[in-house]
Amino acid sequence: MIVMNASDAHEFDQAASAHERDEAFMREALKEARQAAVEAEVPIGAVVVHNGEIISRAHNRRETDANPSAHAEFTAMLEAARKLGRWRLSGCTVYVTLEPCAMCAGLMVNARIDRCVYGAADPKGGALGTLYDLSCDERLNHSFDLTAGVMAEESAELLRSFFKERRKR
Amino acid sequence: MIVMNASDAHEFDQAASAHERDEAFMREALKEARQAAVEAEVPIGAVVVHNGEIISRAHNRRETDANPSAHAEFTAMLEAARKLGRWRLSGCTVYVTLEPCAMCAGLMVNARIDRCVYGAADPKGGALGTLYDLSCDERLNHSFDLTAGVMAEESAELLRSFFKERRKR
Repeated sequence: MIVMNASDAHEFDQAASAHERDEAFMREALKEARQAAVEAEVPIGAVVVHNGEIISRAHNRRETDANPSAHAEFTAMLEAARKLGRWRLSGCTVYVTLEPCAMCAGLMVNARIDRCVYGAADPKGGALGTLYDLSCDERLNHSFDLTAGVMAEESAELLRSFFKERRKR
Repeated sequence: MIVMNASDAHEFDQAASAHERDEAFMREALKEARQAAVEAEVPIGAVVVHNGEIISRAHNRRETDANPSAHAEFTAMLEAARKLGRWRLSGCTVYVTLEPCAMCAGLMVNARIDRCVYGAADPKGGALGTLYDLSCDERLNHSFDLTAGVMAEESAELLRSFFKERRKR
């Protein structure tokens, strides 16, 4: 039998509810990813959260917009900056279904975000833990908190089924 | 006495004229950098060249636009994509007065540029040779040619005098 004292139980509850909150926001990012698939774009989605509320959301639109920077989290961060009227995204957490590339992780550094939460790792280009980790390079002028693997299986499955479907055609 | 045969002399002429061409385009990027300073922005400028012609030019406007992605070369590349009507910037060379950060170098990878030419190195955030080198990481899905140090002194001097002036105020 595992017995928790009141303080441990409180901490456990807090951690559990923080994790639930992360999952709830990631579910919103996954909705955006599904919308990308509907538009025949690689299904990646993102939301930016400030003061506990989603202030922007976006999905990958590289092909539709013919824009090499139109990654989900990149677009969501720019929209968040417009909403807040400042280039500094301090106080913001970025939720994204796939590990950010160097461009997107670089923007997270430049915009001084507080935290990034991502779903699946990206073995081909991930810059927050896989190929590089731009969240905690002491030589850079900003570091931020990182949580990886939130609803990773759902995010990866969306990508797998998208590419499987595309290969069939 | 150094004697060149005809073939060596031809190669030398070609290299010299390629270098002169790089300097000519970098001078245009420096004009953009000076315009940034006029607007009280950190003086960094860029141009994108396609088929021997400048198709876009931009300078740093981070503060003015309250946009964390409004770096000179980033804006110039997005404008080049709009002009060409495609996200792939194959065939393009990006000239920028300061070594690109991870965000901008990441966009160069994502947009599949042919080549980047930069002026001064950036010891604090440079991602094309200083902290990282995203131009030739075999794990990424694209690599590109790189020429560093073209008119580096002019580029660095612009930055030095800008910060010196700002500290005075």
